[in-house]
Amino acid sequence: MMTPQEYKDALMWRYACKKFDPAARIAPATWDALEEAFHLAPSSLGLQLWHFIVVDDREIREKLCEASFNQTQVRDASKYVVLCARRDVQDSDLLAHINRAHEVLNTSEERMQSAYAKYKGYSVFWQGDEGKSWMESQVHLAAGFVAAAAACLHVDTCIMGGIVPAKYDEILGLEDSPYRTVLGMAFGYRSPEDAHALEAKVRYPKDKVISHC
Amino acid sequence: MMTPQEYKDALMWRYACKKFDPAARIAPATWDALEEAFHLAPSSLGLQLWHFIVVDDREIREKLCEASFNQTQVRDASKYVVLCARRDVQDSDLLAHINRAHEVLNTSEERMQSAYAKYKGYSVFWQGDEGKSWMESQVHLAAGFVAAAAACLHVDTCIMGGIVPAKYDEILGLEDSPYRTVLGMAFGYRSPEDAHALEAKVRYPKDKVISHC
Ligand SMILES: Cc1cc2nc3c(=O)[nH]c(=O)nc-3n(C[C@H](O)[C@H](O)[C@H](O)COP(=O)(O)O)c2cc1C
Ligand SMILES: Cc1cc2nc3c(=O)[nH]c(=O)nc-3n(C[C@H](O)[C@H](O)[C@H](O)COP(=O)(O)O)c2cc1C
Repeated sequence: MMTPQEYKDALMWRYACKKFDPAARIAPATWDALEEAFHLAPSSLGLQLWHFIVVDDREIREKLCEASFNQTQVRDASKYVVLCARRDVQDSDLLAHINRAHEVLNTSEERMQSAYAKYKGYSVFWQGDEGKSWMESQVHLAAGFVAAAAACLHVDTCIMGGIVPAKYDEILGLEDSPYRTVLGMAFGYRSPEDAHALEAKVRYPKDKVISHC
Repeated sequence: MMTPQEYKDALMWRYACKKFDPAARIAPATWDALEEAFHLAPSSLGLQLWHFIVVDDREIREKLCEASFNQTQVRDASKYVVLCARRDVQDSDLLAHINRAHEVLNTSEERMQSAYAKYKGYSVFWQGDEGKSWMESQVHLAAGFVAAAAACLHVDTCIMGGIVPAKYDEILGLEDSPYRTVLGMAFGYRSPEDAHALEAKVRYPKDKVISHC
């Protein structure tokens, strides 16, 4: 647990790291907590329609860097994760989730049946273009969740939207898989040369983005 | 700062709260830190194409509750926030952001010009249906960011996707505004009656959602 002031300090400490120290590595216990944050991130209906690929392979990193307009974070960060969304949702995905709930919670046959009916009722969420957008949104939510986690562990991050997802899919062999690339995310420690670390935060005044009624 | 183990404990403590204690209120300093988390959440290009409405008014809360399939979190939570995305992006939005950066960072006229050109080059992001999806994703990212923040402050949350955004827009008078409702988010403290608080987390085994290469 943190105090409100400690949390505000962490928020000010965090920034989108532009230049990582390539020599600074994340300790295993710290990385484990960040993988847990991915694993336990909340999702709509708990469906977890996502997959996270931790890319340690140097050659793949170089290729992904090229497919990211050569943004150096992809290459230099201690850890680099590719965040993927499901291409589409099948009945079998709903059943997989319900079976998992059954396994974990030991739910009754009856509750499983009613969960399945409920999920089917929501299926408009994941159909067509709206569905694609819905699944991408889930992945962004996970990115925000883990970015906040990293700040509390004083691990620097950069969420990477400036990538070519189709090239990532190609490099990672995702084209015939049920998943497609949505975002990248770099984790590590800021280089002392990253001038951005010292810059003031560019945000609109609070009352422009938050109102009360 | 938290240790990896403390962070994992916070992740396990967090859950999507189904029943808030209507009498338990968030202290002002704690709420202030959560507003700061909304305010300082990262966004693509830093554009902050969002608006957050903190709804304290009881009557409006009741109406939003009805527009959320009567999910009681909307009514009972200490704080309820409606997360909105821009309907569309105008040149004036880019200029507003660049002017703000100028104000905060005291950037040169030249750097401002080149930032403007860069932003214009990205404008495919926020056009058409893809753009709508992109702006919704940003808002989901903020929701994830703040949900993680709340867990560190031991404030319970529920992200609310089970709402009727068009009805929210009507209730909040957003129809002719540049913003539209994407999500709701409830903040407060779990009721001792919320059985969900004690249930095990339903997640796929870690190696089903995270892979390494
Ligand atoms: C985008 C989004 C929308 C959600 N909408 C609702 C909702 O309308 N009502 C609700 O009770 N829970 C909602 N949830 C909570 C999820 O059901 C919950 O996070 C998921 O089942 C995982 O459980 P946990 O968060 O308790 O670990 C939503 C979660 C997300 C991420
Ligand atoms: C979805 C998303 C995509 C982003 N893509 C990139 C990127 O490709 N490269 C980069 O350097 N920063 C990227 N950023 C970082 C933002 O530019 C940054 O968060 C924003 O300007 C606010 O600054 P701050 O995070 O330092 O407070 C991205 C952020 C988000 C949320």
